[in-house]
Amino acid sequence: MKGIDHIGIAVYSIERTLPFYTDVLHFTHLKTEIVESEGVKVAFLDTGNGKIELLEPIQVDSPVHTFLEKRGEGIHHIALQTDDIGTDLKNLEENDIRLINRTPKKGAGGAFVSFLHPKSTFGVLYEICQKGEEKE
Amino acid sequence: MKGIDHIGIAVYSIERTLPFYTDVLHFTHLKTEIVESEGVKVAFLDTGNGKIELLEPIQVDSPVHTFLEKRGEGIHHIALQTDDIGTDLKNLEENDIRLINRTPKKGAGGAFVSFLHPKSTFGVLYEICQKGEEKE
Repeated sequence: MKGIDHIGIAVYSIERTLPFYTDVLHFTHLKTEIVESEGVKVAFLDTGNGKIELLEPIQVDSPVHTFLEKRGEGIHHIALQTDDIGTDLKNLEENDIRLINRTPKKGAGGAFVSFLHPKSTFGVLYEICQKGEEKE
Repeated sequence: MKGIDHIGIAVYSIERTLPFYTDVLHFTHLKTEIVESEGVKVAFLDTGNGKIELLEPIQVDSPVHTFLEKRGEGIHHIALQTDDIGTDLKNLEENDIRLINRTPKKGAGGAFVSFLHPKSTFGVLYEICQKGEEKE
């Protein structure tokens, strides 16, 4: 594991939220894209030290839509970077961490991602992500 | 603003949570200290890219105790670093951001900290922090 890749924040509308991040906090908007597997539109921001991902559901069956209905807008997950998601997921399972996705799926930027169940990680939804074709 | 300083995570017990972070995720435990102004014990961890602060309430009137009662364990806040907290808080107020602490108070490591109200920041509790005597 190579530390934090980004923090995911669930919002009702990226369009309405973005000016707070760019004009008030002066973060840099890197890109906006659709992540089909999660049913969300995402916007990435560079804070100057670490990235933030705004998540807006585009389908009612998106887990982010469910999150917003239950808890409202707020911090959704912490993504941890890895170079070897297969080995890391295996080690996590051996340590009784429950995987939401035992097989990684395609996330933002073509990364391979898998989520850990908050019930096994003291309440935090962790995403494990390995960069795909868009190497950074 | 200089980007993210750390992510704060509310937990029932640092002692019970720490082995997940150090032994499973292999983060480095930097220090544990008491922050009187917030009524919490905090443990800082280095993830390899970004810091995590575990927060355990030590008083029932701690805001973290209230958070745990309402929502259970989970991500509590994002702390943003600054070199000039006075100017930044003034700018935030001019942009209609509601400050929980108009006058910064003493946080972890002797930093000056002020929280922004989530109602004015799209659901996220942001902490603005300026390092105190313990310069990094």
